[in-house]
Amino acid sequence: MHRTNPYAWRRFGEFVEWTHRGQAPEPQGDQQASDPRVDLAVEAHELAGGGDIPGVDVETWSEEGITVTRMHVQDEPAARRVGKEPGRYSTLEVPGLRKRDPDLQERVSARMAEELARFIELPDTESALVVGLGNWNVTADSLGPLVVEKLFVTRHLFHHIPDLMGDGYRSVSAVAPGVLGITGIETMEIVRGIVEHVKPKLVVAVDALASRSTKRVNTTIQIADTGVHPGSGVGNRRKGLTRETLGVPVIAIGVPTVVEATTIIHDALDYLLQRLSREVSDQLRPVLNTFDVAEKQKWITDILDPLGDNLVVTPKEIDAFVDDAAHIVATGLNVAFHPAISLEDAALFTH
Amino acid sequence: MHRTNPYAWRRFGEFVEWTHRGQAPEPQGDQQASDPRVDLAVEAHELAGGGDIPGVDVETWSEEGITVTRMHVQDEPAARRVGKEPGRYSTLEVPGLRKRDPDLQERVSARMAEELARFIELPDTESALVVGLGNWNVTADSLGPLVVEKLFVTRHLFHHIPDLMGDGYRSVSAVAPGVLGITGIETMEIVRGIVEHVKPKLVVAVDALASRSTKRVNTTIQIADTGVHPGSGVGNRRKGLTRETLGVPVIAIGVPTVVEATTIIHDALDYLLQRLSREVSDQLRPVLNTFDVAEKQKWITDILDPLGDNLVVTPKEIDAFVDDAAHIVATGLNVAFHPAISLEDAALFTH
Amino acid sequence: MHRTNPYAWRRFGEFVEWTHRGQAPEPQGDQQASDPRVDLAVEAHELAGGGDIPGVDVETWSEEGITVTRMHVQDEPAARRVGKEPGRYSTLEVPGLRKRDPDLQERVSARMAEELARFIELPDTESALVVGLGNWNVTADSLGPLVVEKLFVTRHLFHHIPDLMGDGYRSVSAVAPGVLGITGIETMEIVRGIVEHVKPKLVVAVDALASRSTKRVNTTIQIADTGVHPGSGVGNRRKGLTRETLGVPVIAIGVPTVVEATTIIHDALDYLLQRLSREVSDQLRPVLNTFDVAEKQKWITDILDPLGDNLVVTPKEIDAFVDDAAHIVATGLNVAFHPAISLEDAALFTH
Amino acid sequence: MHRTNPYAWRRFGEFVEWTHRGQAPEPQGDQQASDPRVDLAVEAHELAGGGDIPGVDVETWSEEGITVTRMHVQDEPAARRVGKEPGRYSTLEVPGLRKRDPDLQERVSARMAEELARFIELPDTESALVVGLGNWNVTADSLGPLVVEKLFVTRHLFHHIPDLMGDGYRSVSAVAPGVLGITGIETMEIVRGIVEHVKPKLVVAVDALASRSTKRVNTTIQIADTGVHPGSGVGNRRKGLTRETLGVPVIAIGVPTVVEATTIIHDALDYLLQRLSREVSDQLRPVLNTFDVAEKQKWITDILDPLGDNLVVTPKEIDAFVDDAAHIVATGLNVAFHPAISLEDAALFTH
Repeated sequence: MHRTNPYAWRRFGEFVEWTHRGQAPEPQGDQQASDPRVDLAVEAHELAGGGDIPGVDVETWSEEGITVTRMHVQDEPAARRVGKEPGRYSTLEVPGLRKRDPDLQERVSARMAEELARFIELPDTESALVVGLGNWNVTADSLGPLVVEKLFVTRHLFHHIPDLMGDGYRSVSAVAPGVLGITGIETMEIVRGIVEHVKPKLVVAVDALASRSTKRVNTTIQIADTGVHPGSGVGNRRKGLTRETLGVPVIAIGVPTVVEATTIIHDALDYLLQRLSREVSDQLRPVLNTFDVAEKQKWITDILDPLGDNLVVTPKEIDAFVDDAAHIVATGLNVAFHPAISLEDAALFTH
Repeated sequence: MHRTNPYAWRRFGEFVEWTHRGQAPEPQGDQQASDPRVDLAVEAHELAGGGDIPGVDVETWSEEGITVTRMHVQDEPAARRVGKEPGRYSTLEVPGLRKRDPDLQERVSARMAEELARFIELPDTESALVVGLGNWNVTADSLGPLVVEKLFVTRHLFHHIPDLMGDGYRSVSAVAPGVLGITGIETMEIVRGIVEHVKPKLVVAVDALASRSTKRVNTTIQIADTGVHPGSGVGNRRKGLTRETLGVPVIAIGVPTVVEATTIIHDALDYLLQRLSREVSDQLRPVLNTFDVAEKQKWITDILDPLGDNLVVTPKEIDAFVDDAAHIVATGLNVAFHPAISLEDAALFTH
Repeated sequence: MHRTNPYAWRRFGEFVEWTHRGQAPEPQGDQQASDPRVDLAVEAHELAGGGDIPGVDVETWSEEGITVTRMHVQDEPAARRVGKEPGRYSTLEVPGLRKRDPDLQERVSARMAEELARFIELPDTESALVVGLGNWNVTADSLGPLVVEKLFVTRHLFHHIPDLMGDGYRSVSAVAPGVLGITGIETMEIVRGIVEHVKPKLVVAVDALASRSTKRVNTTIQIADTGVHPGSGVGNRRKGLTRETLGVPVIAIGVPTVVEATTIIHDALDYLLQRLSREVSDQLRPVLNTFDVAEKQKWITDILDPLGDNLVVTPKEIDAFVDDAAHIVATGLNVAFHPAISLEDAALFTH
Repeated sequence: MHRTNPYAWRRFGEFVEWTHRGQAPEPQGDQQASDPRVDLAVEAHELAGGGDIPGVDVETWSEEGITVTRMHVQDEPAARRVGKEPGRYSTLEVPGLRKRDPDLQERVSARMAEELARFIELPDTESALVVGLGNWNVTADSLGPLVVEKLFVTRHLFHHIPDLMGDGYRSVSAVAPGVLGITGIETMEIVRGIVEHVKPKLVVAVDALASRSTKRVNTTIQIADTGVHPGSGVGNRRKGLTRETLGVPVIAIGVPTVVEATTIIHDALDYLLQRLSREVSDQLRPVLNTFDVAEKQKWITDILDPLGDNLVVTPKEIDAFVDDAAHIVATGLNVAFHPAISLEDAALFTH
């Protein structure tokens, strides 16, 4: 290929580079540079030291292989302490999902639907819009669009065959708005435009998350009533989808599909420093504590190369795991939305 | 799977059936039942008898394997005569595209960009929104979403790196809104919401079409300034995307990816009746002419079974041909939109 | 793209053309030219006039939406009469599969497993090789590879974790050898090489078929003990996979995913000639009878254009239907192969 | 879903676990446990200390953004020193490939074809078989099957249209045999069976590799005349494809698509220990030196959780990068195989 204008490509090369960088977190303040963002409330709580944090209620229990954690961040001061927006969070942690057992998957859908019911504070007759965030061409980021495809949408059926839609079905619509790099439009602009026309009483935003720990990847579902905030999700969605921006409650459902490589290296360094700290004599310990945040950040950059921001850690079989997760979430949504759909029936609609 | 509520499935089965039927053309008036819809202006012109039709200007010529036809339907009476909305249509017919020759593909992109330039009556600085209609899960209907993925979108670059975007680049955004069966929302509602927020000066809607002739499948590109009208496209989009509904000019770009099976059977019957008509004696000819439209329609139904409306005729290799077509259209759009992008560079951006 | 050697493409263009043609049935004898090939035994029987044909035993009954037909072609003379190889054929016709009801799908898998059990005349401990014929890049031809992906293969587990593989599991392996256009190798050569190394006691070949009637597309499963013969399947596999060529019994499982466009036009013409013949006066009838096979063939070519051989008729939603069919067949195979797998468990393994 | 035999799933769960574990490297000897395997010769050389190693000739230079390294491991003692099989290795390192510049991609294909020509010691008339190793359902492991799809195969054309195949075309065939988890058959068994039937004079095996450094992921191509050895590649292929097992020369072409997470943590720990060692007082240094290999291995396991073996580090955009790499490799192969295909023409055939 012999191009007349070599400059064009150089310019495009810069676009490509920019776009890739643009998928990394926003231009970060100092605080963010040292603290990788934390999508999962249970991990934010751990990072904040765990245990009792004023203004943060946490309740956790296990049942048949599913650990449920309910967390309530009561106000802004509590939010600053724990590093998550004020609101309610429910998290299901299910290590067994890695075995891909359909029975367990079904139970997780059921449990998710129960938790979700606590968030959906709407009469059965009120409509909901599901927004599947993310990019269907990037496996790790395709959870949202996959859930949209597996959902039982009914809004058009209410318009066209109202007699078939008896009691027990809710009007549900769904969109997968795409990502900034493909559309050129902030996700929030697209969703706001649709919300103004469709006028749902509730928005549910589904998104792939990043975890801080590989053990939570593809085994954890988080539900929150806080909406989706800038910088959250795999790749950055920029402007938030929240009650403030959309005018209706926004429930966020997320499943971590990756750990960012910077996180895992960061943790490895901390782990080693702690190990050393335990083993060296008291005189030496202060030496280890002299490495400050900026220095650690530089090490991470050295190890990961310029690519750091875009590198993620995933199981090799991520394609299959993301598909499973989408199935579980869509089934849970179908049950939670429509009283007439029993768990036994739900798989039909998710098919 | 043992369901507690066998009724649920029966109901869902009806939904499925309805949805499939819903993808077929709208409840049709008598006129439509006998006249399958015609997406391509050149075919409508043929069906209307070809030649001189008052109020319909047609100009056609061939160059290096590409036949270009420009048609202008001047007013409503002319529109009724020819069966297409008033407006301008440009059609490229390129039988050689079946050989998948990249050189020819490039020339078709270039020729398409030239024709398109006649439709884009905007200063270079005005913004455009590309709407990729159709369903990415149905190969024959995936042209629009594929073009969106291959397009060079720039709107976000103007926001974020304005210095890089010198003269010669236009602000372009793109969405693939999905289809009614997946979203529950009329495409027009989604697009209108986005247009109100993004405020483009021009909308370009890309869609897979149906042809009346297998020879035009995947070898023809139509550009029109009429927008997209209900019932057009593979699967029905219901409400139109037009200057009237969106408030800005709407250019429609379409490539036929299928022939509807009803069309091909209809043509086979007509062909046979004509053959017979030529061969039988004058006394017998009236017999052949007694078969009326309703009767022919019944024969088609008999042959195709209840499935008729959803059956299409395609080359087996449709997956590859649709991908080629999306590449050609996206390249043509990139060249037509951005004066700074030469044909030689365009493939880079379409990559 | 400016090529130094325009000849290269012309030559490649001829290759492409040849390859496309090459996917059509083999250079045909006169008999074949007029008689499109018939993959389904039930359709061959209909074409041969139906009813009692000497040497052809047919038994048919319906149960809960599934019509089962067992046909035994006893010898070569019978084979010539009915147009199918000597052997046993079981066919399940299930029009309801179009509604995509999972309950019905499960029952079809169960019924298929029962029929299949009559063909698998092996002790549970003997090994089987499943060959998924076809091209995963061509939706209509992807059934075989999809079944291979959904199958529970165990051969390696017997080697590596024999203790886990208790009674009730059979050693099963599977390959998707690809098609001639992608590999450059006759499928039979590949399969024979594998059979010689893997030494299964049984080969099961899964393939997409062509039906003569749209109502059977994606709703019919055929099992036969005749192996796969040249020219059968969507696209031509050339050399057969049979007990003669492979040295072990070969069961063929097929699902029609398309009707060839030539078939449907052929049938439309016949239908019309019959209708005319019934309805017109005695004078016209002799005219109708003058059209011979060669003439009809020419009409088909006229109607379908040069593309005829590669054009197929499918439901637009073929992607989803082929996926369903692969799920049903894989589930049926898992149950039939492994006594320890109950129908209830089978879906797990097919997941 | 209510299963009659809950045991079945538990057993299957164990199968799944086993299979996943089975994709990790084979039960490893002590040496391997501490030394992660090294696919790239240039990295093995670095690990062995770089510089002059007896019996290992290394030559390296850069040209227009491509760094070429030729390495010759002369004998077994040298192989033990450097950790790679005796033989010749050529490596192209092209950091710029991340910008996805088509011009650069074309130059890399050309350069790869030139290097490859040094390995293909065959008259133009001798046939070659390309084996695309890996799993098309696992993005990181799909390079081999993707190359097979993009290759210009000719073997069947020589059989069917010999007159079209003039001088300058080689008989090329290609297979993607799948992976053990899908077929139940060792790759080597499948390939050996095919080789015995197809009788090529040369086998080229294409495979996704793991790198030790993120900067080489998707930017490096390695060609070697050593064949493919057990444990090499993403996922384990068990038995080697070598001149010894197949009876003909085997060229291996690999592109690293991931870094194993264990590697990156291992390197991070080493990096930190080195940094500390340089920066801390003399008293601390002895403490650092007490950590032995086994301890470091335990740390890695602690950090990565039980999942370690299956976790990989990739750019989020891996889907696009793997597709690019397949295009580059297939183009290089087309040029290297067929003297009649110029670089300018090659893209046509790869299309």
